[in-house]
Amino acid sequence: MVNEVCMNDTKTSRGGGRDRIFQAAAEVIYEKGLAEAQTRMVTDRAKVGTGLLNHYFKWPELRAAAWELIFQAVVRDLWRSQETPRDALDRFLEEAFAAEARLFWKLWLEAERLAPGDKPIAEALGRIRAQMRDRLTALLQEGMTNEDWSLPDPAATAVRLEAMRDGLAGMILSDDPDLDASLAVHHLKRVFDMETVGAKQT
Amino acid sequence: MVNEVCMNDTKTSRGGGRDRIFQAAAEVIYEKGLAEAQTRMVTDRAKVGTGLLNHYFKWPELRAAAWELIFQAVVRDLWRSQETPRDALDRFLEEAFAAEARLFWKLWLEAERLAPGDKPIAEALGRIRAQMRDRLTALLQEGMTNEDWSLPDPAATAVRLEAMRDGLAGMILSDDPDLDASLAVHHLKRVFDMETVGAKQT
Repeated sequence: MVNEVCMNDTKTSRGGGRDRIFQAAAEVIYEKGLAEAQTRMVTDRAKVGTGLLNHYFKWPELRAAAWELIFQAVVRDLWRSQETPRDALDRFLEEAFAAEARLFWKLWLEAERLAPGDKPIAEALGRIRAQMRDRLTALLQEGMTNEDWSLPDPAATAVRLEAMRDGLAGMILSDDPDLDASLAVHHLKRVFDMETVGAKQT
Repeated sequence: MVNEVCMNDTKTSRGGGRDRIFQAAAEVIYEKGLAEAQTRMVTDRAKVGTGLLNHYFKWPELRAAAWELIFQAVVRDLWRSQETPRDALDRFLEEAFAAEARLFWKLWLEAERLAPGDKPIAEALGRIRAQMRDRLTALLQEGMTNEDWSLPDPAATAVRLEAMRDGLAGMILSDDPDLDASLAVHHLKRVFDMETVGAKQT
């Protein structure tokens, strides 16, 4: 997915050094996390020297930009083109704690942790958070237009769904014995059901 | 609070070296966090040599035990003796994101983050989590007995309240612009209101 993302997003001009570095940074951060990723892993993977990386990027900014690239894809994936709100929401609820989502969770919680002391990360997190919340809110509103469900305040519901998902993810990642992925999905769905007023059963 | 905690909890025998070290460790961890706390800070504060610390403790275990001591006090404070369930729950909801709670949140999220690679922390986290959940569940059940509120599954409500609180705390600590402490309290209360069925308005 990261590969794909980078091919689509960076202005790839036949694999120029700058783009290769950017793409390599996203791959390294996806695999290793923000704290463990190092410039040398990126230059090794991009097959360039440290000098070239330093010529194009400052590491803290490259790191944050690569993190943001990864999550831009996550934002887009939240509501795919042509997808109905109901299908998108079902996927949101069902796949929130899927095994494949674990790496994203770790990356997300890592950015939250680093943000207070890392300005580029804080800014990237802020932008992605806003995009994700806007998209989830739009999805919830579109579902109301379609009469899939009714919500008194879709924006507030979006915040609560996110908070619940974050909190449950934190519990799972730290091996809470009372929780596994399927129970977490159950809790998240329960919250959405409580949020809806006179939701249609589909 | 930590001072108080330690005085009550450790078997203080007129300030023996072991107890002074344990108390100093809890204070250092409360102030610095798990990752930044170092043995030297503890020995400096306890006014003992490194040799004595190493004689009594292994650092990873001392660190986890000191963390656990801090949170044992938090668990007790969740429902104070003589307090009605309604009062305790109101405090739980109202004070969840108070400024004074920030250090505890950071410590909690830090333990969640460290747990996968740190067995003593993972075990301490597991014990505290179970105690906290049991106490919150007991509080919710007692409120049902008192007919303060009605909940179909108090244990599940406890998990969801915790997850929501964790998720909202993570957002606040990483400076989510859409959220502040009072809005977070609003969201947490809203979740509890949705959980209750025919709750009495008091």
